[in-house]
Amino acid sequence: MTATTISVNGRTYQWMERPVVIVCVDGCEQEYINQAIQAGATPYLAKLAKSGTVLAGDCVVPSFTNPNNLSIVTGVPPAVHGICGNFFYDAQADAEVMMNDPKYLRAGTVLAAFADAGAKVAVVTAKDKLRSLLGHKMHGICFSAEKADQADLKEYGIENVVSLVGMPVPSVYSAELSEFVFAAGVKLLEKVRPDLMYLSTTDYIQHKFAPGTPGANAFYAMMDRYLAQLDALGATVAVTADHGMNAKTDSAGTPNVIYLQDTLNEMLGAGKTRVILPITDPYVVHHGALGSYATVYTGEDVDPVALAARIRAISGVEVVLSRKEAAERFELPPDRIGDLVVVSERLTVIGTSASKHDLSGLDLPLRSHGGISEQRVPLLLNRKLKGAHGVARLRNFDVLHLALNCAQ
Amino acid sequence: MTATTISVNGRTYQWMERPVVIVCVDGCEQEYINQAIQAGATPYLAKLAKSGTVLAGDCVVPSFTNPNNLSIVTGVPPAVHGICGNFFYDAQADAEVMMNDPKYLRAGTVLAAFADAGAKVAVVTAKDKLRSLLGHKMHGICFSAEKADQADLKEYGIENVVSLVGMPVPSVYSAELSEFVFAAGVKLLEKVRPDLMYLSTTDYIQHKFAPGTPGANAFYAMMDRYLAQLDALGATVAVTADHGMNAKTDSAGTPNVIYLQDTLNEMLGAGKTRVILPITDPYVVHHGALGSYATVYTGEDVDPVALAARIRAISGVEVVLSRKEAAERFELPPDRIGDLVVVSERLTVIGTSASKHDLSGLDLPLRSHGGISEQRVPLLLNRKLKGAHGVARLRNFDVLHLALNCAQ
Repeated sequence: MTATTISVNGRTYQWMERPVVIVCVDGCEQEYINQAIQAGATPYLAKLAKSGTVLAGDCVVPSFTNPNNLSIVTGVPPAVHGICGNFFYDAQADAEVMMNDPKYLRAGTVLAAFADAGAKVAVVTAKDKLRSLLGHKMHGICFSAEKADQADLKEYGIENVVSLVGMPVPSVYSAELSEFVFAAGVKLLEKVRPDLMYLSTTDYIQHKFAPGTPGANAFYAMMDRYLAQLDALGATVAVTADHGMNAKTDSAGTPNVIYLQDTLNEMLGAGKTRVILPITDPYVVHHGALGSYATVYTGEDVDPVALAARIRAISGVEVVLSRKEAAERFELPPDRIGDLVVVSERLTVIGTSASKHDLSGLDLPLRSHGGISEQRVPLLLNRKLKGAHGVARLRNFDVLHLALNCAQ
Repeated sequence: MTATTISVNGRTYQWMERPVVIVCVDGCEQEYINQAIQAGATPYLAKLAKSGTVLAGDCVVPSFTNPNNLSIVTGVPPAVHGICGNFFYDAQADAEVMMNDPKYLRAGTVLAAFADAGAKVAVVTAKDKLRSLLGHKMHGICFSAEKADQADLKEYGIENVVSLVGMPVPSVYSAELSEFVFAAGVKLLEKVRPDLMYLSTTDYIQHKFAPGTPGANAFYAMMDRYLAQLDALGATVAVTADHGMNAKTDSAGTPNVIYLQDTLNEMLGAGKTRVILPITDPYVVHHGALGSYATVYTGEDVDPVALAARIRAISGVEVVLSRKEAAERFELPPDRIGDLVVVSERLTVIGTSASKHDLSGLDLPLRSHGGISEQRVPLLLNRKLKGAHGVARLRNFDVLHLALNCAQ
């Protein structure tokens, strides 16, 4: 006999009555869906407002992939689970490192807890960078589209993925990488029928194409077809995003960039500060590692309060917070975010030094995320709610609560 | 002999060496141009980054039409010229009234000053509501597309406009209303060759269509053809906007509205506060009088400081300022803005009472403006600058300075 509820990280989840599929659409600014509906590209999504539930919620700031995916699968903010960027300065190790290693994870996932209690759980991500974090200590199926051909029973809980899905392994820079995730989700629901499935795409398309343009509408039309199939297979389907997406350019498409390390070096001299861009990951061709959020570590002879005031005066800066203020406001782990947190406004991104950003891969005007301006994301369900969801300020990491506890 | 410089409202402008055309594209979020260039719809605008000058500037908040058009033609903020909305509460008269009457204007226009000094000046607006303000005390040509068939020599400085332009008078809710403005501008430059011309369009299209979508790209393709003609006729052409434009809905297209008068009535009781929406004008079908800016007048028994704190806690509110704070931050006339100024965040608008907004004319998802989120607008010139423009924070109302003093 299985449990009727599961408690993880202080929250309680009802056992599912039917398969539950959680979809995290990377970089899904709400306007992508709105405009795709207007263009007639997404008939399934178009009817959700009547047949299901359409809400919006705030994602975690920094509005990046890793902190938000981990918040969604743990149900709590980075202050609890510890993952506050794709990349950070590990002060103990005195090294700038990726945050992909599960050793940085400070909380268990809801996925692992359900699996431990006997549920059949599956996770499919687009990029492999998320796989080890999302699948940490989870018994079940967990693989990435990027390395689908490497999946085996022992480590990934599944084999022959490529033939199951019926698509070749796509390029890591493609819409097909996300399509592979959806196609795998449908096949898994048909053949394996997991009780709980988490699908997480990549924002390659959203970094390239604005809402309502042909490239974006084609992506959402593809997604719409797979969501309809997941629905038809009897699942509760809940869709959210890790973060939104905005243009970061002027009217001619030139990026608005604050090269913060260059600026601070000019202000204070080289070596006095260390600017960290938590957007950094191994896949930066489509955004040049430029996002709207940075952290700053200051040397002992730099007064962070005075420095914060000077950074606030830079054109394009929206907010500068001390470590303590940022940890409180954004619910971040204070030991991993630097002395200052800098957020740029909607149309501006932050870089380190101009010489360190390779923008040669930007064949289209920069679109990116990371700031408060990308915080509002969709929360969609293919079912009505039983009643009030009881959450004062909805977050994307309430999606498991909505799907498991509130959906009819 | 004509003067070599003109001084107006504390700023000095060089006499033009060739015709100067200032274009205010209503609701021109920068992304409209960026995406139209990407779609290949605007070959003339596409080359401006190389052949001319592409800058961005901040418009006046409230990011509405009247305050910004008046700032552009006077070169100063509303604190000086007095027009801080389309609509306001006239405390002296105890009446909520339109701000179209020139009696509310507290500064002369650069247009009128040049005309007085002997320049040939022409103004063409889309809607008639702006004509009397823009043409105040100005000798020259001044008419609206909306009422082009009523223009006569005595009052409008021109007759037979409809046959000159070669287009019928368009509907006030149409893209053609703006096209008429551009077509008239080209014909006037050909036949009358004004020294200084101001063209101001309507944002009907921008309220309806997102950047990069077919309806928007068609509008910018039309504009592109006329700008190329103005350029070919030898004018210095400078383009800016009165304000940007953003989606104000969730992912299903439902507007995010704070009905602030309803909320305050619930908090404090009816009749204790008066919420004014300065977006209000006679043409509200396409936005339902919903924008991201409101002012609040409080009764004597209401503490505005305590009320501000309560309004700040409403989801979707970005900033609440006292009269004094708003007057300073946004350079507004303190006697015309209420006890509190409320700005909502990018995706949210403010209404008065739900029963007072007719949204039946909204056949497409709401897009609107009024807030800080619509402050950044394009500043484009078809010429390079002679050197640095010397402005620390560029504003849309620096466009005359750029065109007259800085363009090569």
